[in-house]
Amino acid sequence: MADKKVEAITSMEEDFAQWYTDTVVKADLTGYTSVKGFMVLKPAGYAIWELIQKQLDARFKETGVENVYLPMLIPEGLLQKEKDHVEGFAPEVAWVTHGGLNELQEKLCVRPTSETLFCDFYQKDITSYRDLPKVYNQWCSVVRWEKETRPFLRSREFLWQEGHTAHATAEEAQERTIQMLNVYADFCEQVLAIPVVKGQKTEKEKFAGAVATYTIEALMHDGKALQSGTSHNFGDGFAKAFGVQFTDKDNQLKYVHQTSWGVTTRLIGAIIMVHGDNNGLKLPPMVAPTQVMIIPIQQKKEGVLEKAEELRERLAKVARVKVDDTDKSPGFKFAECEMRGIPLRVEVGPRDIENNNCVLVRRDTGEKITISMDELEAKVEELLVTIQKDMLEAARAHRDSHTFTATTWDEFVDTVNNKPGFIKAMWCGETECEENIKAETGATTRCMPFEQEHLSDVCVCCGKPAKKMVYFGRAY
Amino acid sequence: MADKKVEAITSMEEDFAQWYTDTVVKADLTGYTSVKGFMVLKPAGYAIWELIQKQLDARFKETGVENVYLPMLIPEGLLQKEKDHVEGFAPEVAWVTHGGLNELQEKLCVRPTSETLFCDFYQKDITSYRDLPKVYNQWCSVVRWEKETRPFLRSREFLWQEGHTAHATAEEAQERTIQMLNVYADFCEQVLAIPVVKGQKTEKEKFAGAVATYTIEALMHDGKALQSGTSHNFGDGFAKAFGVQFTDKDNQLKYVHQTSWGVTTRLIGAIIMVHGDNNGLKLPPMVAPTQVMIIPIQQKKEGVLEKAEELRERLAKVARVKVDDTDKSPGFKFAECEMRGIPLRVEVGPRDIENNNCVLVRRDTGEKITISMDELEAKVEELLVTIQKDMLEAARAHRDSHTFTATTWDEFVDTVNNKPGFIKAMWCGETECEENIKAETGATTRCMPFEQEHLSDVCVCCGKPAKKMVYFGRAY
Repeated sequence: MADKKVEAITSMEEDFAQWYTDTVVKADLTGYTSVKGFMVLKPAGYAIWELIQKQLDARFKETGVENVYLPMLIPEGLLQKEKDHVEGFAPEVAWVTHGGLNELQEKLCVRPTSETLFCDFYQKDITSYRDLPKVYNQWCSVVRWEKETRPFLRSREFLWQEGHTAHATAEEAQERTIQMLNVYADFCEQVLAIPVVKGQKTEKEKFAGAVATYTIEALMHDGKALQSGTSHNFGDGFAKAFGVQFTDKDNQLKYVHQTSWGVTTRLIGAIIMVHGDNNGLKLPPMVAPTQVMIIPIQQKKEGVLEKAEELRERLAKVARVKVDDTDKSPGFKFAECEMRGIPLRVEVGPRDIENNNCVLVRRDTGEKITISMDELEAKVEELLVTIQKDMLEAARAHRDSHTFTATTWDEFVDTVNNKPGFIKAMWCGETECEENIKAETGATTRCMPFEQEHLSDVCVCCGKPAKKMVYFGRAY
Repeated sequence: MADKKVEAITSMEEDFAQWYTDTVVKADLTGYTSVKGFMVLKPAGYAIWELIQKQLDARFKETGVENVYLPMLIPEGLLQKEKDHVEGFAPEVAWVTHGGLNELQEKLCVRPTSETLFCDFYQKDITSYRDLPKVYNQWCSVVRWEKETRPFLRSREFLWQEGHTAHATAEEAQERTIQMLNVYADFCEQVLAIPVVKGQKTEKEKFAGAVATYTIEALMHDGKALQSGTSHNFGDGFAKAFGVQFTDKDNQLKYVHQTSWGVTTRLIGAIIMVHGDNNGLKLPPMVAPTQVMIIPIQQKKEGVLEKAEELRERLAKVARVKVDDTDKSPGFKFAECEMRGIPLRVEVGPRDIENNNCVLVRRDTGEKITISMDELEAKVEELLVTIQKDMLEAARAHRDSHTFTATTWDEFVDTVNNKPGFIKAMWCGETECEENIKAETGATTRCMPFEQEHLSDVCVCCGKPAKKMVYFGRAY
């Protein structure tokens, strides 16, 4: 961990929750509003979301996804059509009861998610196998009436994407469910530098109305897990509730099979808690709105600002770059770069200019590198790639060194209490054991990973024959 | 106008409103929902909005705009702080009265626009001249409880961007107001191929709470006007209502000066009604999701589909291109290309392959051009530029030939009734005359154009001394 240079941020070892809040504030990511439980995404925060959106959307489109936009309000009758779904969401929606000056005949909820609207739309839009598959997605915001809120992790409104697909066969729906989970996992690793565990949620933890829910789980710096994206296979349950049918090639009327999948601005919370340190935010270059900050030293001396601007113009061809030419001191600017997580800082002053040098400082390691100005573009380009790679490796090393196994109950309890992280353990498959484990330790089943291991023959909780290896953990 | 090839679309001469509806349906831009007054933006419609968003956002950012995201719900107390504003919007908002299972202590409206939220945010975020200017924008949807709705032109929810800025001086706010109006006007001309008239709204037509509202007005094919974008200068009215103050360089506490500006999915309605013809939609290449459609002729013959795919790969380097290899007939595919407004169609069949030729067909003029396959990329690239330019010129010619002047009341009434289009006329500046003109002819003041002409000394309505030349017209 780099030396602590920023006094305004509480140490994560002292109080991780306070460290998180301080980091969000000092990086200027969000702002407060008079609307309780809602947040403002400020430019520095929203720009990260824009970079996520752009790169993830491109990956979606490579797999044939098309974007659409559906209404933000859902009539009560539509929400109620699928029994499990309404039970899951009705307690946490916001209701519109008046439109203009009149009371509505049927109240409308602000969408908490749009399965019901997509079903309603597909029911009208799909008639033949020729209309399938539908592989639609929308970028929007949703509202869920949470009691406790924290920036990015839990708020009454958040930005997300929700993909909703309809297929002719169960196999095709299952394939798409896993395909999108893989898109998420690759995106997290390659773009956000966050390694994830891929697996299936248990019956207890699956989405309201789904046949199966798949998840990517990431490990935060404090050893807690964060569910970072989910992909659901609905089978034909929603189709039956909404009458979404098509005439197949064999002239038979059949129900479609559906999926949905989503990630949210929560991913920004994951970036903060996976990569951040006691000096603040640390952004992977691929989602850093500013990748390089040039800081002129003794900027009032002749030629310094001109040189900084010249370097900016050169670097603009290979990176997102800015010059900080405000009247703050260099030390203050350095600290701001740290807090805001800018991957690379370039220092250039009169002596550097004389020697045709400049100094590069990596945010991830604190390493200082003096280079010839002639090799600036090449070196910066190379370093941004290196930082991206090293950040993933550092996160993976942290994750791996905080992943434990437990084969006995005592070992399990000891690990939960003393070694924050993932715990791999065998499980009998019964919800009762899941609930007992949660009640006694606070750890929940994160997922049944695709990569199964055989740790023992019996459930870590009840001792009955084990069916699955599960990742457990305390979670956000 | 091209020959009518598509029977499914009503002629615009017969029934323009029905032509519009048919065109929207046949181009597959929107879909119906069970949510009254709301629409679905289908892939073909949403993709146009994505292209608008991408290109407009880039132009915003060149002027220093930063994107943010604010809550979608506004507490009643916040909405009421600025008197004119709440009077303008309260009658048409949707109210959330319940969150989760509880009734809210204070009801919240779904944002119809976000001036009040930005003021609330700026009040907390701005303290010093160093914090200024704030040049923020958000892309989102808003809700207004309209009674009558039409796709793109008027619906209870629509997508838009809303820019909100805060400045230290009145001059700077006025400069930004006009700067953004110019961004909109250039964008409409250069990207949407729609010429616009720039000017100021009258007192009667200005935005609720603004000191001055500026507008771009476009002329549709039926001679009606469409307000296509607005930019408002608020002076310090909102700042005073919300207490948005800063300490200036001279150590005095001052109110900020604010602006806001927006365009909506209405622009898609403008594209349809400015460029469309009796065969359907006609998209300017710069906002056409598919710019070139390759249609294989006798596609079952050996080598035809392979050649079509080869041409697609070559063209993908210079254009957004697809192959229609479905089992529909070529004639059907041609008609679909027309209806969907795809700017350029490439036909390639066995004889073309033998001759190393292919046929290009322009959507805007219907012109067929046989070219050697060797010059395909160059010719397509060149033609897309030509089509973009020619569409703007055609729209400008239509607009100019449907812009009339009237210096007497009889002439004015005759023009409104018999020559659909803009009418330039002199006006005394009194709201009473504006209201009389509207009551008697249905024409409203579109704007007081920046380019003033002196048509006569007296108001076309009351005969008193004229103050301004005004564009009048019937409008959407």
